[in-house]
Amino acid sequence: TYAHMCTHKPKHLLPAKNGEEATIQFLLELVDILTNYIRKTFDRSTKVLDFHHPHQLLEGMEGFNLELSDQPESLEQILVDCRDTLKYGVRTGHPRFFNQLSTGLDIIGLAGEWLTSTANTNMFTYEIAPVFVLMEQLTLKKMREMIGWPSGEGDGIFSPGGAISNMYSVMIARYKYFPDVKTKGMSAAPRLVLFTSEHSHYSIKKAGAALGFGSENVVLLSTDERGRVIPSDLEAKILDVKQKGYHPLFVNATAGSTVYGAFDPINEIADICEKYNMWLHVDGAWGGGLLMSRKHRHKFSGVERANSVTWNPHKMMGVPLQCSAILVREKGILSGCNSMCAGYLFQPDKQYDVSFDTGDKAIQCGRHVDIFKFWLMWKAKGTIGFEQHIDRCLDLSQYLYEKIRNREGYEMVFQGVPQHTNVCFWYIPPSLRGMDPNSQEYREKLHKVAPKIKALMMESGTTMVGYQPQGQKVNFFRMVISNPAALQSDIDFLIDEIERLGHGL
Amino acid sequence: TYAHMCTHKPKHLLPAKNGEEATIQFLLELVDILTNYIRKTFDRSTKVLDFHHPHQLLEGMEGFNLELSDQPESLEQILVDCRDTLKYGVRTGHPRFFNQLSTGLDIIGLAGEWLTSTANTNMFTYEIAPVFVLMEQLTLKKMREMIGWPSGEGDGIFSPGGAISNMYSVMIARYKYFPDVKTKGMSAAPRLVLFTSEHSHYSIKKAGAALGFGSENVVLLSTDERGRVIPSDLEAKILDVKQKGYHPLFVNATAGSTVYGAFDPINEIADICEKYNMWLHVDGAWGGGLLMSRKHRHKFSGVERANSVTWNPHKMMGVPLQCSAILVREKGILSGCNSMCAGYLFQPDKQYDVSFDTGDKAIQCGRHVDIFKFWLMWKAKGTIGFEQHIDRCLDLSQYLYEKIRNREGYEMVFQGVPQHTNVCFWYIPPSLRGMDPNSQEYREKLHKVAPKIKALMMESGTTMVGYQPQGQKVNFFRMVISNPAALQSDIDFLIDEIERLGHGL
Repeated sequence: TYAHMCTHKPKHLLPAKNGEEATIQFLLELVDILTNYIRKTFDRSTKVLDFHHPHQLLEGMEGFNLELSDQPESLEQILVDCRDTLKYGVRTGHPRFFNQLSTGLDIIGLAGEWLTSTANTNMFTYEIAPVFVLMEQLTLKKMREMIGWPSGEGDGIFSPGGAISNMYSVMIARYKYFPDVKTKGMSAAPRLVLFTSEHSHYSIKKAGAALGFGSENVVLLSTDERGRVIPSDLEAKILDVKQKGYHPLFVNATAGSTVYGAFDPINEIADICEKYNMWLHVDGAWGGGLLMSRKHRHKFSGVERANSVTWNPHKMMGVPLQCSAILVREKGILSGCNSMCAGYLFQPDKQYDVSFDTGDKAIQCGRHVDIFKFWLMWKAKGTIGFEQHIDRCLDLSQYLYEKIRNREGYEMVFQGVPQHTNVCFWYIPPSLRGMDPNSQEYREKLHKVAPKIKALMMESGTTMVGYQPQGQKVNFFRMVISNPAALQSDIDFLIDEIERLGHGL
Repeated sequence: TYAHMCTHKPKHLLPAKNGEEATIQFLLELVDILTNYIRKTFDRSTKVLDFHHPHQLLEGMEGFNLELSDQPESLEQILVDCRDTLKYGVRTGHPRFFNQLSTGLDIIGLAGEWLTSTANTNMFTYEIAPVFVLMEQLTLKKMREMIGWPSGEGDGIFSPGGAISNMYSVMIARYKYFPDVKTKGMSAAPRLVLFTSEHSHYSIKKAGAALGFGSENVVLLSTDERGRVIPSDLEAKILDVKQKGYHPLFVNATAGSTVYGAFDPINEIADICEKYNMWLHVDGAWGGGLLMSRKHRHKFSGVERANSVTWNPHKMMGVPLQCSAILVREKGILSGCNSMCAGYLFQPDKQYDVSFDTGDKAIQCGRHVDIFKFWLMWKAKGTIGFEQHIDRCLDLSQYLYEKIRNREGYEMVFQGVPQHTNVCFWYIPPSLRGMDPNSQEYREKLHKVAPKIKALMMESGTTMVGYQPQGQKVNFFRMVISNPAALQSDIDFLIDEIERLGHGL
């Protein structure tokens, strides 16, 4: 189908001599494939995915072969490869894709990514990324203002995701209280303990393991039935740790937990952190967007008392992946924690103000430009546009909650209006409805319902939603809404689809 | 200039009702800006950059204002913002941009990035990235084959950059020898020591600090005059550490050092690692590409004996940022080291083979799709195309070396043909040529020459090359060539420019 590209080969593209025409032609062909994909993404009559098992794709589909070889392919085949890569993938921007915390396809954000990759530069110095470095500084300041730190003062950096942002928070907390660990290692500190909710994201535990604390020194806090940390449990566990002679260092309060969308009570946790002189981190990777909503930001009440905050615009705010910020109240501490002053990169004798060379704050060296798409979206929407998006998503999740909470065949995992867009529920097929809900048989059967419906859903390709068990609770669906394309009719469709696929189980 | 877009506002784009036309029109306008930029990038009559100080850009240029606001901008202004962001940036693909290890603008790689951001998905599960997950597996296997591990067996993952890849190597080395550290922390191990060259990348030291070893437990190895580790120094330092009762854990051998482009003698280091039962990591972030060259891969001799290897296709191979791999010889250890088995993401009861859900190997949760652009470039060039690119870059650096080694006013920082494309040299202005090269005055004056020329170069915007001091050596230029657009005439231009700007100093 791209046979007219036959006359050009990859080696005829720029920088080849007279390569301009072939280059532009090739890129326009590609853009045609991409815009077709975008069109279809928003078209409800197309599937969300066309599922194939790994072995099927590995064996190779018609005209599409994943194997790499010694010899070059033609541009014609490259375009076919591009088309087929999209064809066998998942349309995460489809109005009926609800599978992850990051969904949707923002056109301005996409434009930002296309430009970013065309500029193809690196955040480590002002020298080679002057505009992007300044955009990052201004945007981080705006985010700190929204957190409520005076005049937006403080520090921060964009990192390759929420797990790394959370890891930063643990590193700087350690550096704040035990700066010698940077040079002497963990033996320069007593046994340090981190606290986080049993509902919190697993990245806190990963950070504990990676940074040398040990995952056993990450103490999990009990939660109420809505998944929120119980402050008295935190204090009891701090006292227990102190009694053992260990040092309680750090508390992570989750603002928008992964499964329940729960917001821990930040103010009460902050009181305890002050009392015991501990670092307070707020993991708002998922919830962060709510800071932009006058209606919902009260759920973050107390966040201005945090020492650090993770906030992923690539989740609730619909910014393309990757876009995650770690924000820090104390200026200079990120750099103190991480700087190694590499002479080849951070020359002090440049002609410009080298305080704009921010790379040495990072644990990375090269750092991808994650800021531009976000900055551009902010320009295009205004703060007010993000607010509208967030309020709409929360309204939709409340619509879903109201729709199913008393509906036959549904049971809510927890009661009450969701704090975030997470709606967690079981679908009970008719064959299970009469059974004793406490029996082992019922539990075992119910545990298999969500995986079975999900498998059928993926095979029919009509919609996607996640499921998981949690603690003693068997597999349930977790619906999340961050997709700006989703409407009430898509929520209705999801419920119809669950019933269609699950009715006979 | 984009006034015809006035009729459309950001909120009229998809998913807005009937938003197709506005969306396609907007994206095509953007692509027009991007292709114009690409055209100019390869045009030697344009500047590499149009330098402005931070305060100038912050004050706002005509029609271009970095500040974010509450209200949305028009699509017209968004397009102006895009154009101006590129205008005030640095053309890292320009044939005369030599400032970093990552240079050039590969059109196929760029196409790959545009597609990746359009697909906007996440590497953690096969479920939402089936094609990309398989591409990553196949590509990592090819890379392991090139390293020389039997049948390409082993493990690996793409990470957000060489520093993180190197950090992985330290983590898995620790897990291999002291697996209890994962759960119990560093107190479950003796005092652990890491070894790396004084010329190695600072990320090893950063990893030592971050992971709880302490930067003092990163021992720097002496090098010969070419910047290569002296194996006897390694052994002496291991013995010294053992005598103190500490545990020598890990050696990093650099394959292509940042400043000199030096290759440490891997085989001799591997002998020592075997003797003392230590983990051998090869940091081939910069040198890795040479594995694809039959002519130059002998510099990696012994790499098949390494336990892990870092290799950044985004450097020497011209893949757009970010694209870095950590490759591991032992299967399963990455997962053993990092897995936390989060139920909400890695459900064991899916309908497909969940061994393809590779996210739990990573320290990240969400992970950007870095593989596609690389896979697509490999398809378009073939292995043979990468080989040709690498051989050409090394030829060009030898051309530069031959050109200046006996030229008046130049002094080489080290003697002999460079091992990689790094050519390190001082330019000595006529006013310094008669002076005693050992005098303090000469050293002080020479130290200021490279920064001064670099500042003038950036202000005139004609070319860019890096400089730095190293150990006792005052500031010198480090020329690196990875740009596929560079020709001999661009090397000539650089030398002419250095002389033009530096002659009168």
